[in-house]
Amino acid sequence: MSSKKILIIGGVAAGPKTAARARRLDPDAQITILEKGKYISYAGCGMPFYLSGKIHDFDHLYSTSYGVKRDPEFFKSERGVDVFTGTEAISIDRANKKVIARNVDTGAESVFEYDKLVLGTGSYPITPPIENLDLKGVYRLNHLEDAERIKQALDAGEVNDVVIIGTGFIGMEAVDAVFNPMRAVTVVEFRDTLLPGILDPDMGTLLYKNFYEQGLEGRFGEKVLKLEGEDGRVTRVITDKGSIDADAVILAVGVRPNVKLAQEAGLTIGETGAIVVNEYMQTSDPDIYALGDCVENTHLLTGKKVYGPMATYANRQGRVVGDNVTGGQSTFKGILGTGVLHCMGMNVARTGLGEVQARALGYDIESIMVATFDMTHYHPDSNKILLKMIVENGTKKLLGLQGIGKGEVAKRIDVAATMMLYGGTLDDLLNLDLGYAPPYNTPIDPMVHTGLALKNKLEGVANTYTPQEVQEKLERGEDFVLLDVRTPQQFNMRHIGDDRVQQLTLGELREKLDQVPRDKEIVTVCVMGTRAYEAARILQGAGFKNVKFMEAGMEGWPFDMDDF
Amino acid sequence: MSSKKILIIGGVAAGPKTAARARRLDPDAQITILEKGKYISYAGCGMPFYLSGKIHDFDHLYSTSYGVKRDPEFFKSERGVDVFTGTEAISIDRANKKVIARNVDTGAESVFEYDKLVLGTGSYPITPPIENLDLKGVYRLNHLEDAERIKQALDAGEVNDVVIIGTGFIGMEAVDAVFNPMRAVTVVEFRDTLLPGILDPDMGTLLYKNFYEQGLEGRFGEKVLKLEGEDGRVTRVITDKGSIDADAVILAVGVRPNVKLAQEAGLTIGETGAIVVNEYMQTSDPDIYALGDCVENTHLLTGKKVYGPMATYANRQGRVVGDNVTGGQSTFKGILGTGVLHCMGMNVARTGLGEVQARALGYDIESIMVATFDMTHYHPDSNKILLKMIVENGTKKLLGLQGIGKGEVAKRIDVAATMMLYGGTLDDLLNLDLGYAPPYNTPIDPMVHTGLALKNKLEGVANTYTPQEVQEKLERGEDFVLLDVRTPQQFNMRHIGDDRVQQLTLGELREKLDQVPRDKEIVTVCVMGTRAYEAARILQGAGFKNVKFMEAGMEGWPFDMDDF
Repeated sequence: MSSKKILIIGGVAAGPKTAARARRLDPDAQITILEKGKYISYAGCGMPFYLSGKIHDFDHLYSTSYGVKRDPEFFKSERGVDVFTGTEAISIDRANKKVIARNVDTGAESVFEYDKLVLGTGSYPITPPIENLDLKGVYRLNHLEDAERIKQALDAGEVNDVVIIGTGFIGMEAVDAVFNPMRAVTVVEFRDTLLPGILDPDMGTLLYKNFYEQGLEGRFGEKVLKLEGEDGRVTRVITDKGSIDADAVILAVGVRPNVKLAQEAGLTIGETGAIVVNEYMQTSDPDIYALGDCVENTHLLTGKKVYGPMATYANRQGRVVGDNVTGGQSTFKGILGTGVLHCMGMNVARTGLGEVQARALGYDIESIMVATFDMTHYHPDSNKILLKMIVENGTKKLLGLQGIGKGEVAKRIDVAATMMLYGGTLDDLLNLDLGYAPPYNTPIDPMVHTGLALKNKLEGVANTYTPQEVQEKLERGEDFVLLDVRTPQQFNMRHIGDDRVQQLTLGELREKLDQVPRDKEIVTVCVMGTRAYEAARILQGAGFKNVKFMEAGMEGWPFDMDDF
Repeated sequence: MSSKKILIIGGVAAGPKTAARARRLDPDAQITILEKGKYISYAGCGMPFYLSGKIHDFDHLYSTSYGVKRDPEFFKSERGVDVFTGTEAISIDRANKKVIARNVDTGAESVFEYDKLVLGTGSYPITPPIENLDLKGVYRLNHLEDAERIKQALDAGEVNDVVIIGTGFIGMEAVDAVFNPMRAVTVVEFRDTLLPGILDPDMGTLLYKNFYEQGLEGRFGEKVLKLEGEDGRVTRVITDKGSIDADAVILAVGVRPNVKLAQEAGLTIGETGAIVVNEYMQTSDPDIYALGDCVENTHLLTGKKVYGPMATYANRQGRVVGDNVTGGQSTFKGILGTGVLHCMGMNVARTGLGEVQARALGYDIESIMVATFDMTHYHPDSNKILLKMIVENGTKKLLGLQGIGKGEVAKRIDVAATMMLYGGTLDDLLNLDLGYAPPYNTPIDPMVHTGLALKNKLEGVANTYTPQEVQEKLERGEDFVLLDVRTPQQFNMRHIGDDRVQQLTLGELREKLDQVPRDKEIVTVCVMGTRAYEAARILQGAGFKNVKFMEAGMEGWPFDMDDF
């Protein structure tokens, strides 16, 4: 029996992972990778850290953990895999199981046979309809070559006024990489808040508040129309609302799946625009597999098809495809849209559905925002975090969790994602046996605490307004008392400036109940929500009928941002 | 209707948590806490951090997150809870629903009535059969008063030679608190390895190797017989194998549940020696609840009763009891024995069953040890971690995970604990959508990677020996080749000194296959296991019939400890 020919198109992440797994399972297979670009098996996600200087050596981005460059020689000697770089696959002859490829330098064509074909053709950056994108100083951040170019400009001291267009994960990683107090860094976002579609608007606004206080400038709901330049170099970004000086512009408006090859070969393309695969990662042609940024995925909660180009999917799917092209039956069932980001000292993470997303999909949901500490508050390394949880009404099924803060949020998101894989509900939370010690956690984990608070809300024990709802009540001119139960010092540092605000510390509340009007709605507020909840319970216990507290306290209040 | 009387005995953690929850649910209830000691609602787990100086202010250990001391006045004013400190409950009159208590200073007795009684009587430290424990300089670490005494001695410069007896969580937290290079710190452990019962012996040994290299002295399988002193102060610890100089001795040999009151009242005590409760936390008397360190729990995997005195259980059970004494029906189903520890720069965590534990319980298991990075290896903040996973053969059900390392392990343990709550198996791993970005994770999370490696082992794709097994083969004098595939530099830094070791880098292996004997068993070894796995697959692919690789590589090899 002659050895099986496994041909892989694409050598960034999904392809090499597939090759490595397939090789381990089938030592006799002929495994070949075709890659259009110059580098293979590189750490695209590491580019921002190279830009920021955290990673000094460019080579690290395509080296193994034991310091060997992952170049074609490495793949040949250590993996027994033939890699052709600078080689672009231009068509698939499905009938004869052949791929025609072209050398990108010489134009010479060659033919590769396959028994199993794997498409890891990835994605390409969206080019927005902006004039003069060909000016010098305009960058993308999608390939290693892009990172090299930006790094050269940064190192040459050419970059002082940076405008980043788009505030998704890539855009904000670019912000993290280039932001420093000596540069003017501005993000321009077509939608209304930071990380739209990733964070709910309330969470995105609170995150931006933090970045704004550090010096980042944000332009939201603003559309870039054109770039202007001098001597061929960009000098200014023109939007539908004004202009911004810029000597560097980074485009990060998202990516689209690279499906040209698949489409021309007649493979089924889904409504998301990406290649359709089944749970074995097979395309509509059972001998052709596809994975990574060029395929669509199934959302594990909604069952709907979604496009989610993430490195972790490419890698995990690589293992599945590696199994299946060598005779296995592994499955990849879908995704939850989990993502994490480090930006300007803040940890940002999310999984599942956001509130806006869930409502748009027709879910009957309840949500809560909770401000808390990531570990015991008396530990000097503790930091605040804000969590927002979304559950389905009735079933109490966890639908999503978002977290931002200087403190640890990624762990909580991972636990939530694990719960959601199993259809976990709020009723499971007290039985989650998560590790506790003062440097790691609070005795009741912040995610569990958030869920219990949401359970209180669902069961009518906790009656809350979100900060957004309080702001709307104030703006509508409603008559109510906003009872601030913090200490006078805390109040004086920062408070909501309004006549309807009344001060009374939690400690004096039981004794001074007569000072609180019984004929008005009372909304209690504190630093993080804990004392306000206590205060609300005290008032309710004392017979006050119309009492709520503001979720997340002043930690969740972004509406005085202009005061800073 | 008169208000319900809720009487709580014990004011450390479980009791106050119960009171707080009950108060929120029932504003009219008369809630009373009786506490024998001087402090209430304090952070016992914070004591080591006070000792180490990480927490400067003693008051922080019993203050709220907003800086208010949790003393009886606080409980009265903010919670409406009556607290009696220095008040010891001495008997329960179940027929008349009364508790007789005594003032510890005056001896005066008083009577407290209850509708619902809550026992949060906690635990007491085991006093081992060691002579002269009453010498000055002998400490425990169970109450705030203990922490104060040790801190005074540390600050007075009286503590240079410390001996810590017992290496459970408390013992190792004490090590973390007092260890510094200017002191001689020795741990004495009756059992054979560090953290026995918490980590498997192989993991405990590897952890000790790290601590030993930092300067900690360990005496294992050694029993303390007596202490010797001069002028009433301890000077020496005498064991069954020798003696150790000591000007301070910390006893940390564990705790036992404090069940005297319950037992004398005729409540059922379990085989573990702790109070029996149902999942509503009710004792054998339905009007008496018990929780925290004085009760036994159900292990969620085995269904067996276990004694696990952990702060997180006390807190979570406090919420359950708070619900139930006010008419609710909340449940606490059990525990997984999850625990985390920070000690001497290392993160230590475990959940579920260990290998030794699982085998002793009769489980048919398989396990693996994997050395890996906690985030992308090219990120400068990345650190190595060692994970050991245990699953049930056949069902592939996750039974346990242990982790040690400078890198992040707590997150992985929490995810594993979450999976175990739902009966998760190795087949679920590729569908766990955990957050990935270079500062947080590897594209395939280390825990998932470990599980996939274990799956390879179960399916015969990866054939391994544990480091322990390799050591045993060497000691038995077996004829085999230990093929070290690292670079010459790595080999020269540290290697297994034995004639059976052969050197050949992974990169040259495919070309130099003729140098590897075909008639002997080959065991490949590398830094962390990755290259050894590749090498084994190459050899197998080339027709070598008898090939295995050593799990976890030299990272998992502690047997040259004396060389350091």
